[in-house]
Amino acid sequence: MAAAYPPSLTALIEEFEKLPGIGHKSAVRLAFHMMKVPEEKARRFAQAVLDARVSVRLCESCQNLTDERICSICSDPSRDRSTICVVESPKDLAAMEKTREYRGLYHVLHGALSPIDGVGPEDLKIKELMARLTPEVTEVIMATNPTVEGEATAMYLSRLVKPLGVRATRIAHGIPVGGDIEFADEMTLARAMEGRREI
Amino acid sequence: MAAAYPPSLTALIEEFEKLPGIGHKSAVRLAFHMMKVPEEKARRFAQAVLDARVSVRLCESCQNLTDERICSICSDPSRDRSTICVVESPKDLAAMEKTREYRGLYHVLHGALSPIDGVGPEDLKIKELMARLTPEVTEVIMATNPTVEGEATAMYLSRLVKPLGVRATRIAHGIPVGGDIEFADEMTLARAMEGRREI
Repeated sequence: MAAAYPPSLTALIEEFEKLPGIGHKSAVRLAFHMMKVPEEKARRFAQAVLDARVSVRLCESCQNLTDERICSICSDPSRDRSTICVVESPKDLAAMEKTREYRGLYHVLHGALSPIDGVGPEDLKIKELMARLTPEVTEVIMATNPTVEGEATAMYLSRLVKPLGVRATRIAHGIPVGGDIEFADEMTLARAMEGRREI
Repeated sequence: MAAAYPPSLTALIEEFEKLPGIGHKSAVRLAFHMMKVPEEKARRFAQAVLDARVSVRLCESCQNLTDERICSICSDPSRDRSTICVVESPKDLAAMEKTREYRGLYHVLHGALSPIDGVGPEDLKIKELMARLTPEVTEVIMATNPTVEGEATAMYLSRLVKPLGVRATRIAHGIPVGGDIEFADEMTLARAMEGRREI
């Protein structure tokens, strides 16, 4: 039997199938879409893949993704250099930035401690964090996820940070804004009670 | 506020978002995936897009997608040149080839007649089909979809083909193999009754 699609199209379908969350049918649909768009647009797409892959690297200071040696946040003179907010991933950093609340610096760990998955301190950007703790830095905010791994990482880091005379704080956990107490899980409710404040 | 992601990554996310069926979250996931794969794999992916877009064209004979001037089916000497199976799209052709039943040639219309969408005979590869109806061709099988548009197209083509002394046939419609009569729609059931055969 002759192949149903030309080799170059079959190759493209296979490439799309390698992407996470893309099954065979989606891969066929995406490959056919690429055949239909003007050649210029297909070129722009391919170039965007190359550009991003080649130019994106980790900021030498905070380890966030950047096109430069030092990222735009670290090199922004208006940011408060006394506070470092530690997050697990660039996506967490992006979520935090969207709030427009925080004006300090960040540090991206690229993961969380997870002995079960074989992720130890040396697999995270912890050495790089410690190297940033100059006297200028007075507080390190642990904004790791409220998971077992995230909590353990926050704990581990706070023990490293505090002996240096730096405050270690943890972001608050509780009922999400707009959330319903009735449907909150026990852990969240317990944390919400624990973290209660005078009004 | 500083941009959350470097410009080249933001550009890649936007490119992924332009693809059909890919929302913002999927686009972020796919772009991050591209950051994580070895550079060689990202290059291969980008190259596959370019290769397919640049080298895939329509077969000069059957109008199916091909990397050559004439596709592998049309140039296969073992195919029966007396029969042409007309389909709406390359995907339909691929589905037909998978059955390994049909040994004749194909013709891809690239659509179906649809006055409501402004698709007339001149928008389909009908001229190209007529040009192929040499005396060698004895039958044209209408394998357009069992939709209003597909039926109209099959009808239209059969009226063009028959005066040339070529048989025009239509693929059978009925209960799908493994299908349940109870759940078949009325149109399908009616077609199944209509197309009944002696056993």
